[in-house]
Amino acid sequence: MFDIKQKVGVLGGGQLGLMLLQAAIDWNLNVKILDAADAPCAAIAPEFVEGSLQDYDAVYQFGQDVEVLTIEIEKVNVEALEALEREGKKVFPQPHVIRLIQDKRLQKQFYREYGLPTADFVLTANREDVRNYADFLPAFHKLGKDGYDGKGVQRIASPADFDKAFDAPGLLEKAVDFDKELAVIVARNERGEVATFPTVEMVFHPEANLVEYLFAPADISPEIERQAEELAKKTAQAIGIVGLLAVEMFLTKDGQVLINEVAPRPHNSGHHTIRANFTSQFEQHWRAILDFPLGDTTAYTPAAMVNLLGEEGHTGPAHYEGMEEILATHGVFPFLYGKKITKPFRKMGHITVTDSNLAKLKEKAEWVRGALKVVTK
Amino acid sequence: MFDIKQKVGVLGGGQLGLMLLQAAIDWNLNVKILDAADAPCAAIAPEFVEGSLQDYDAVYQFGQDVEVLTIEIEKVNVEALEALEREGKKVFPQPHVIRLIQDKRLQKQFYREYGLPTADFVLTANREDVRNYADFLPAFHKLGKDGYDGKGVQRIASPADFDKAFDAPGLLEKAVDFDKELAVIVARNERGEVATFPTVEMVFHPEANLVEYLFAPADISPEIERQAEELAKKTAQAIGIVGLLAVEMFLTKDGQVLINEVAPRPHNSGHHTIRANFTSQFEQHWRAILDFPLGDTTAYTPAAMVNLLGEEGHTGPAHYEGMEEILATHGVFPFLYGKKITKPFRKMGHITVTDSNLAKLKEKAEWVRGALKVVTK
Repeated sequence: MFDIKQKVGVLGGGQLGLMLLQAAIDWNLNVKILDAADAPCAAIAPEFVEGSLQDYDAVYQFGQDVEVLTIEIEKVNVEALEALEREGKKVFPQPHVIRLIQDKRLQKQFYREYGLPTADFVLTANREDVRNYADFLPAFHKLGKDGYDGKGVQRIASPADFDKAFDAPGLLEKAVDFDKELAVIVARNERGEVATFPTVEMVFHPEANLVEYLFAPADISPEIERQAEELAKKTAQAIGIVGLLAVEMFLTKDGQVLINEVAPRPHNSGHHTIRANFTSQFEQHWRAILDFPLGDTTAYTPAAMVNLLGEEGHTGPAHYEGMEEILATHGVFPFLYGKKITKPFRKMGHITVTDSNLAKLKEKAEWVRGALKVVTK
Repeated sequence: MFDIKQKVGVLGGGQLGLMLLQAAIDWNLNVKILDAADAPCAAIAPEFVEGSLQDYDAVYQFGQDVEVLTIEIEKVNVEALEALEREGKKVFPQPHVIRLIQDKRLQKQFYREYGLPTADFVLTANREDVRNYADFLPAFHKLGKDGYDGKGVQRIASPADFDKAFDAPGLLEKAVDFDKELAVIVARNERGEVATFPTVEMVFHPEANLVEYLFAPADISPEIERQAEELAKKTAQAIGIVGLLAVEMFLTKDGQVLINEVAPRPHNSGHHTIRANFTSQFEQHWRAILDFPLGDTTAYTPAAMVNLLGEEGHTGPAHYEGMEEILATHGVFPFLYGKKITKPFRKMGHITVTDSNLAKLKEKAEWVRGALKVVTK
């Protein structure tokens, strides 16, 4: 039943919250946000509550007067969400999904158990333990919990790198000889409808381990497209998520599609959908968690997305260099997150680029990367 | 110079303000809104000031700490804006433009003076005066000031209708035997760049005198399209407006394009641009008044727009009937204004419909008109 009066609570008021609020305006949704006072959403949320996402009492209290709760970041107090769920609140994604995704070790075991193809791995207890797997290299050591935005991953190319391993529960994942990194965002609503956005291709920043460029559609065969979308749907159904699931994948050089990681929320790999698809990932998130019919994910134009990262060597109040040229160029759409302070590689915004011509699209995306800079004065 | 820190004040926090705020999120604009406490924007404006738009002191005080001032409704205190302009604030559209547009008599005389084609008219002092123009009928009597949303216009078909004329300064305009009603939204920024959105075709509700359906693009020849866009540009340049100008026109049965009325702000005839054009009219408004380069107005899909008017016979707390079916239909995008109380013919929202097939587009628009209703329980 469509009830625009119901109150929805969002844990987290960062840039994803900002874009969720922007989409919520269309339906005049009654949204309340929990986060620290300096969060980007503070000024524009219909209701904003200051508090820590990881504090049991803050989350539990926040959930008291809402009908539906959701998240825009996984690092939240799941115990409080479980208590709210027991008391009859709808919490989407469900607490058990958040728990699964907070722990990369559980995640990988889940893929194995459900026959979802993923890179080979072993669980490791601590740094010492990792040294037992010299024959498993080259590999990536991943922290079980608390990794985010490229942090919590170390490449272990040879035994000489073992010192870089985390001294905490983690997993060692065989390095995949991949051709491309792909992502599919899939939505699933309470009644079990499932819909995928077209597969995108991600190019990572070599140093920051963050998405530097994204291209939609991915340059892959229809058969790989089908496989990637199928894998995303299968994963969403296996997890039983209500909400969005962003599924990052490897396309190996021998043509296999493997799950890398998933995120149970709107994701960096879907920002371009605001400017390139009939339904954005943010609107789709609302549709999924409010049990509305899912929207049309079709793209009306090819698009690229460039993350706007804080310039190296600049820490302090943010200034944007090059906006005039950016705004003068057709098919270039900057989105700024309003973070007061820039730091090297901090995500300060993103730029969506659209062009019906794929070669021009790539050219324009590369130009954009250099044309807009976040610096201190 | 792009400065996202500058504060922009908007007089008015209705549905146009809502859509302006939605567009402002992309660039994290620092927007402050003035309106009554129950205005739709109150909850989501970065800063909201309660006050009357028609009160000199309220508007003057509101303008003190902003760098740029704009409006989303013409009925504002222009004296206060003139004072602020004299003190060096940028006010766009300029107070002289608002003054011109607040008075339909001045507007019509302006068109005549600048050779902008418009329907023949005579100025009338009061109701008695109108009776002198029996040979001018059929005609429309328009109130000089304070008409809005279809109010302030009376059809005078024959002398028997003279009692319906307004007993206030107005103008009597010869009824135009038109084939279609068209509209072009044109933007002009401070540096004088001008850009038009593609011409749209409006179908009015016979009783409420409000746009009932809008189709983009209009079903007109390329030559008429050119004429309509040229007329909009010429008008914007003649007025010297900085901001958006919505130019409503008649296409007469003998192929002439005549200006009907203009509005110096985002307009009902451009709502579909949010879902159908690379730049929306709301983003374009920000670009124009902040002296940014104007955006690409190209449409990526044909679109229709249906105003969601309060159902006849229903006055009270608003409920939305049919949203489930609306949301289940691809290419149908409802936008609700969040007004608590519905009244017959009150604008409660609008629905954008997109389809690459024009026949299906019209079919879908007609279906939408009946499928979604705003009622009281």
